[in-house]
Amino acid sequence: MTNPSLDPNPALTAQLVDRLMHLGEITDEPGALTRSFLSPAMHLVNETVGQWMREAGLDVTIDDWGNIIGHFASSNPEAKTLLLGSHLDTVRNAGRYDGPLGVLLALAACEELRRTGSWLPFHVDVIGFSDEEGLRFHSAYLGSKAIAGLISKEDLKLTDAAGVTVAGAVGQGDTLPAPRYAAEELLAYVEAHIEQGPVLETEGYALGVVSAIAAQSRCTCTFTGQAGHAGTTPMTMRQDALAAAAEFITLVEKVGRETAGLVATVGHVEVQPNASNVIAQSVVLSIDLRHEEYSVVASALVLLVQQGTLLAKPRRIGFAIAEVQSHNAVRCSPFVTAVLSRAAAQSQVDVPQLVSGAGHDAVILSRLAPVAMLFVRCRGGLSHHPDEYVEPEDIGLALQALITFIREFA
Amino acid sequence: MTNPSLDPNPALTAQLVDRLMHLGEITDEPGALTRSFLSPAMHLVNETVGQWMREAGLDVTIDDWGNIIGHFASSNPEAKTLLLGSHLDTVRNAGRYDGPLGVLLALAACEELRRTGSWLPFHVDVIGFSDEEGLRFHSAYLGSKAIAGLISKEDLKLTDAAGVTVAGAVGQGDTLPAPRYAAEELLAYVEAHIEQGPVLETEGYALGVVSAIAAQSRCTCTFTGQAGHAGTTPMTMRQDALAAAAEFITLVEKVGRETAGLVATVGHVEVQPNASNVIAQSVVLSIDLRHEEYSVVASALVLLVQQGTLLAKPRRIGFAIAEVQSHNAVRCSPFVTAVLSRAAAQSQVDVPQLVSGAGHDAVILSRLAPVAMLFVRCRGGLSHHPDEYVEPEDIGLALQALITFIREFA
Repeated sequence: MTNPSLDPNPALTAQLVDRLMHLGEITDEPGALTRSFLSPAMHLVNETVGQWMREAGLDVTIDDWGNIIGHFASSNPEAKTLLLGSHLDTVRNAGRYDGPLGVLLALAACEELRRTGSWLPFHVDVIGFSDEEGLRFHSAYLGSKAIAGLISKEDLKLTDAAGVTVAGAVGQGDTLPAPRYAAEELLAYVEAHIEQGPVLETEGYALGVVSAIAAQSRCTCTFTGQAGHAGTTPMTMRQDALAAAAEFITLVEKVGRETAGLVATVGHVEVQPNASNVIAQSVVLSIDLRHEEYSVVASALVLLVQQGTLLAKPRRIGFAIAEVQSHNAVRCSPFVTAVLSRAAAQSQVDVPQLVSGAGHDAVILSRLAPVAMLFVRCRGGLSHHPDEYVEPEDIGLALQALITFIREFA
Repeated sequence: MTNPSLDPNPALTAQLVDRLMHLGEITDEPGALTRSFLSPAMHLVNETVGQWMREAGLDVTIDDWGNIIGHFASSNPEAKTLLLGSHLDTVRNAGRYDGPLGVLLALAACEELRRTGSWLPFHVDVIGFSDEEGLRFHSAYLGSKAIAGLISKEDLKLTDAAGVTVAGAVGQGDTLPAPRYAAEELLAYVEAHIEQGPVLETEGYALGVVSAIAAQSRCTCTFTGQAGHAGTTPMTMRQDALAAAAEFITLVEKVGRETAGLVATVGHVEVQPNASNVIAQSVVLSIDLRHEEYSVVASALVLLVQQGTLLAKPRRIGFAIAEVQSHNAVRCSPFVTAVLSRAAAQSQVDVPQLVSGAGHDAVILSRLAPVAMLFVRCRGGLSHHPDEYVEPEDIGLALQALITFIREFA
């Protein structure tokens, strides 16, 4: 499967793919890969990955928040630490690569460095975070927030479907976890992850590096009209909430297309009463805006508010927009990214820089250390789906890039 | 409530309103007026209306299909018959006027003609049809079809939510009901009904007559794109089914606005997967087109197929359209309508002619006799809703118009 001319260690790659398939069978829902924060499947995954870490000579810790840390010690006890990792939890009915790929790549890199007897002037900690997807508590990053000491009192109060709080699930009462690392003892956090988008595949690259994790605004728009009989209400007398919403959806797409680097999406629409012979009373829809710069997201939002108001008025439609979530962009470290990019460049002529539209644990780790991310091509850009797929060749290239990065970084 | 200067018989109008309120309490679902074909509430309504008919001197028949017929005999046994009526079944959580108003107006007119000793050269049959809304079997017009001898074998096989067939509910095996009337013994069918639209109210009329019941086409459109991550898929690489559907909804509205007399509605939209952070994979939506002429409906549909195909292609979106139901317009009798219009003209300076966008039992009766319809203004055009409302004054005017019509028709 792997190309020996490009992958110097096909056996290690094959083992990594086997391990991905193995973890892909560990699920809370038989037949639909699903692992949520502190679930039985997550405990079993930590046990399994912990065993592999120990076999590779790493010291293993699993903290109260379900994060697993494999410590690969430098012979210099005063050394600082390089963090590598990703998450081991999943969405519901997930693919096998989103998250675990980054943890197993980091582990395999350590195995190879140990096998080749490489001396490192820093410790390497391989972390498998316990909650990036936020499936159980509809939050996100509980794992990396615990590592970074960023869990808030509000986080502790979140409840799952069974009414259990985060505090209850973790079993630590109201105590906020202290950061596991002080900023001054860390060199960087580097995360490998599948791209979850189609850019690398379309442009013909196996690997890319991330310049920034995009700023995002998530809004809810409500259009309020007047229900009416589809047969008896003349076009001129209608207050059709769906016709207004449709015009607005087209505007959202237009703003996305006309603003370089912006992605603008309406993915969720609820129509009331949603009957073929009744003019829509109301429509609620989502807007998702992302860009490398929050200022661009904010400008797009202002434009949409203006245009939505303008189109709603002559239609006698109520228009309301509420921002339900937003965050600034996270800039990756230019220095660490440059080293990572050079490491990736051994297998491809050049290494594209991408903006990550999806969030990652690196968002949280950036509060503690310089961060960099390596993106790996995935088939059709597909993710959060059982058909998610990464070519073993590409996994081999990513592994080689990560090993080279660690050596160069040293 | 009623205006004595306009309503010559306020006591009869008040009784009619009381009866509407009384029938509005007879429901299969307590608290939400609902009466479906051959349900307990329908049996009780027939018993109640039958009692009122007998008190008015009519001979009452209830057929196997749940239609109630009150026969007001002419002294001439060779006379032909004028049919008056509407339906007594309702939608779920209905208003009190849609249907029963027409039956009770016809009954009150007969009472008044009997009280004043008017001699009629024709019999009058007041019919309360048992299934116009089609709530139980997702069909429509089972009552009037049975009267007209138009029940098909397919109709008999329809099943309700409990798996009971129409044949089983009616208890007549596979026997198709014979028409209750031969065409040659009928003079006309005249139905009074609330407008279920806002035109009369907007234009300031209590009453209108119907020129035709609109032709209709109901279609289902499917847009098939490609799901993708809202954060990681650049605008140029998207196959967003919802963006395509939104553009199409705007076109449907535009065709409706630009074609005189056409109403074009998208009322139902289903998005898959309908998640705020996922580009839509597919959208299924309804189109409802109605016009006085089927040829106009057909031209609009052709235009929409062309425009939908054009917009879908550059988006790499699959576009399919399927007509799920269509019917031609039903033209009301110009002669009967003219008499009805003159009768209505005693209370308002002129009587507008409307196209009925909604279907009525008159659609079926038109196969057997000339038909005419009197529309009564309803508040806000609202129907199929508990807040449906008709002013008692307008009911009085409709009653007077119907009485005058019968006298003039004689």
